Amino acid sequence: MERITAHYLIETPYEVAKAAMVLAGEQSSGTFVETPGETLELKQRFGAKIENIEILESVNQPAIPGPSTSFGKYHRAKISVSWSLENFGFNLPVMLSTLQGNLYEITQFTGLKLMDIDFPNSFVSHFRGPKFGIKGTRELTAVPTGRPLIGTIIKPSIGMDVETTATLVKTLLEAGIDFIKDDELMGSAANSPFDKRVNAIMKVIQNHADSTGKKVMYAFNISDEMDAMQRNYDKVVERGGTCAMISINSVGLSATKKICDRGSLAIHAHRNGWGMLNRHPLLGIEFKAYQKIWRLAGVDQIHVNGIQNKFWESDESVVRSIEACRESLNKGFEVLPVVSSGQWGGQAFETYRQTKTTDLLYMAGGGIMAHPSGPAGGVAAIQQAWQGAIQGWDMETTADHHKEFAQSVAKFGKIK
Amino acid sequence: MERITAHYLIETPYEVAKAAMVLAGEQSSGTFVETPGETLELKQRFGAKIENIEILESVNQPAIPGPSTSFGKYHRAKISVSWSLENFGFNLPVMLSTLQGNLYEITQFTGLKLMDIDFPNSFVSHFRGPKFGIKGTRELTAVPTGRPLIGTIIKPSIGMDVETTATLVKTLLEAGIDFIKDDELMGSAANSPFDKRVNAIMKVIQNHADSTGKKVMYAFNISDEMDAMQRNYDKVVERGGTCAMISINSVGLSATKKICDRGSLAIHAHRNGWGMLNRHPLLGIEFKAYQKIWRLAGVDQIHVNGIQNKFWESDESVVRSIEACRESLNKGFEVLPVVSSGQWGGQAFETYRQTKTTDLLYMAGGGIMAHPSGPAGGVAAIQQAWQGAIQGWDMETTADHHKEFAQSVAKFGKIK
Repeated sequence: MERITAHYLIETPYEVAKAAMVLAGEQSSGTFVETPGETLELKQRFGAKIENIEILESVNQPAIPGPSTSFGKYHRAKISVSWSLENFGFNLPVMLSTLQGNLYEITQFTGLKLMDIDFPNSFVSHFRGPKFGIKGTRELTAVPTGRPLIGTIIKPSIGMDVETTATLVKTLLEAGIDFIKDDELMGSAANSPFDKRVNAIMKVIQNHADSTGKKVMYAFNISDEMDAMQRNYDKVVERGGTCAMISINSVGLSATKKICDRGSLAIHAHRNGWGMLNRHPLLGIEFKAYQKIWRLAGVDQIHVNGIQNKFWESDESVVRSIEACRESLNKGFEVLPVVSSGQWGGQAFETYRQTKTTDLLYMAGGGIMAHPSGPAGGVAAIQQAWQGAIQGWDMETTADHHKEFAQSVAKFGKIK
Repeated sequence: MERITAHYLIETPYEVAKAAMVLAGEQSSGTFVETPGETLELKQRFGAKIENIEILESVNQPAIPGPSTSFGKYHRAKISVSWSLENFGFNLPVMLSTLQGNLYEITQFTGLKLMDIDFPNSFVSHFRGPKFGIKGTRELTAVPTGRPLIGTIIKPSIGMDVETTATLVKTLLEAGIDFIKDDELMGSAANSPFDKRVNAIMKVIQNHADSTGKKVMYAFNISDEMDAMQRNYDKVVERGGTCAMISINSVGLSATKKICDRGSLAIHAHRNGWGMLNRHPLLGIEFKAYQKIWRLAGVDQIHVNGIQNKFWESDESVVRSIEACRESLNKGFEVLPVVSSGQWGGQAFETYRQTKTTDLLYMAGGGIMAHPSGPAGGVAAIQQAWQGAIQGWDMETTADHHKEFAQSVAKFGKIK
């Protein structure tokens, strides 16, 4: 029977091989003593198997402080553990509980992070994956290959009424934007009830589409309880929308998959809360593993932060995340990386240099809204930045050629 | 308008008040520059408000290693931040994205943990909460107040066929157990298809109930995709079951709430994956805050680890968790704490001394299954331990009076 293999980065004050065996034992028989009925045959067929151990450095302080502070050395290693598909079939939550369950609680580890997962083809084939992904999102927005989609977020995140929002959307459409999204803090607020917001915004988008032939994609934040999400989804479909946003960590896997399965709208996966799962170098889950789970669930677009972002994440990590989204998951399932956080166009050069791709949804909030010439200037500046980056220009040369981008450099280039 | 207040433990190399303002700003307007339309009036009505700051110690090393290593001092503090209910209404996922979203990514923090949440009564009243909770679980299992429910987990976690499982269940019923659960690694496996397992186990439980009047509660692990969970739930109801288990972190909030809302079965919330969210003292979420969210969703029983457990968690933390579950959430909503991990009866004394409650589901896996006199001896030993603990005896006195408990002490008392 085929197996799923999980790759972990671990730290332990004990012998690495012994700690790995504790992990495999916890995620197989799951108790602290041998129990009757746990035969060798059972263990071989259903037990977790340690596939590989690669010893790394040792350190003097535990990565995660805790009760086990009486040890002198903490050994780091990469370990790979596999489970038979027979154990959980195609049940994603039970698979998660196997790969990411009680093992984080094991005393023998002072650090444990899930780095990557290898799935057999037969497992991946069971899932539909992203219905739209990179190609479908380009089709829905009529953005040809060769440049990224330019997107923005309605800001301020909270407090704006529906009419003001719709007016802002109109301005952004006229500015040439490809994609707009609700903020994740905005669901159905007193000042902006969901249905009213969808009605007002889709009217503006439809009018613009009727006169230009381009239907801009708007990601309405449908995150809510299950039934409310379904109703919100229906509302967006009914008004001719093409996209819905879900805060995937807040909503959770099973409800998100249920929404993805419907397949009428592209699903924009917002990973807010991600820092909690990833910020520590030796705890939680690495994006490479994380995005695979959500691609199996069927999201079409997923956030990856951005180069020189305003958050803690390093550029190297962002580049790895972009590459991870674009890598084929066995047979496809490419998901569109959503580049955001403090972006204003200036990062286009480094983003393109390091990823060599334009298959991105490049999001700017303040970088568009607060442009000296207004949102139209902001969109133009980002398009100019990407044109410059693709033809091999640097920031200065691009600013010399384009007025709006020069204004962006003057205003945002100094913010750190 | 009433507000929800979140209490965080934070660490920052910057001035604490300034870092707190960055948090409040990110979770209000959410961008790095002032945007047009963000008026003072909007900010006052919808913005996050810093309610309190309590400065704690400063340290020389950041709690979470990262790029900001050039600072000499890292200041710790408790900060309280509030948001108006107007912002998200009764939408739990959007509330989570507000309290636990992008703020974990803010560069200004080298540590951030959500410690507690205060809800206004009007917010809590909107939710039904646990349908069964402590009282309802006692009623369903016919366990009177004055002693904990004694439970066990089917072990080995994986690989056992349905017939062997049903035979084991029969043995456990005859041993006098109150509660049995599937392991979280077991959903619908090749060796134990869900429906077949429910049929076989409920037949044994129903027969036992018919002859004794006591229907033992079995928590079937229904964790799966949304539709499959609904189908699994129906199956348990159809066969007369009283409980379903959900791996809440793997399944997620919206799908779990949808299942809780049905209200025909007690919901056993397994928190596997919890270590990832809580193990670091300055990252993630504390159990006191976590369990409130799940009580609003409506779970009836929730895991809290156990005193002297086999995992990393300290006894103090376990005691705090038990107290948190039993505390009234504004108007009630008490949830039954599930004490587990390495429990065999020996911990009853310390558990009772420190919590002074018997409103517990006291779970032992190996402690029952691997008892020298078999499972019946294991259940008897745990019941004896609790009787001893309640009457103020210590472990030795209890062992002197009870043969089965003495056997447990001899076998498990040495395992560390």
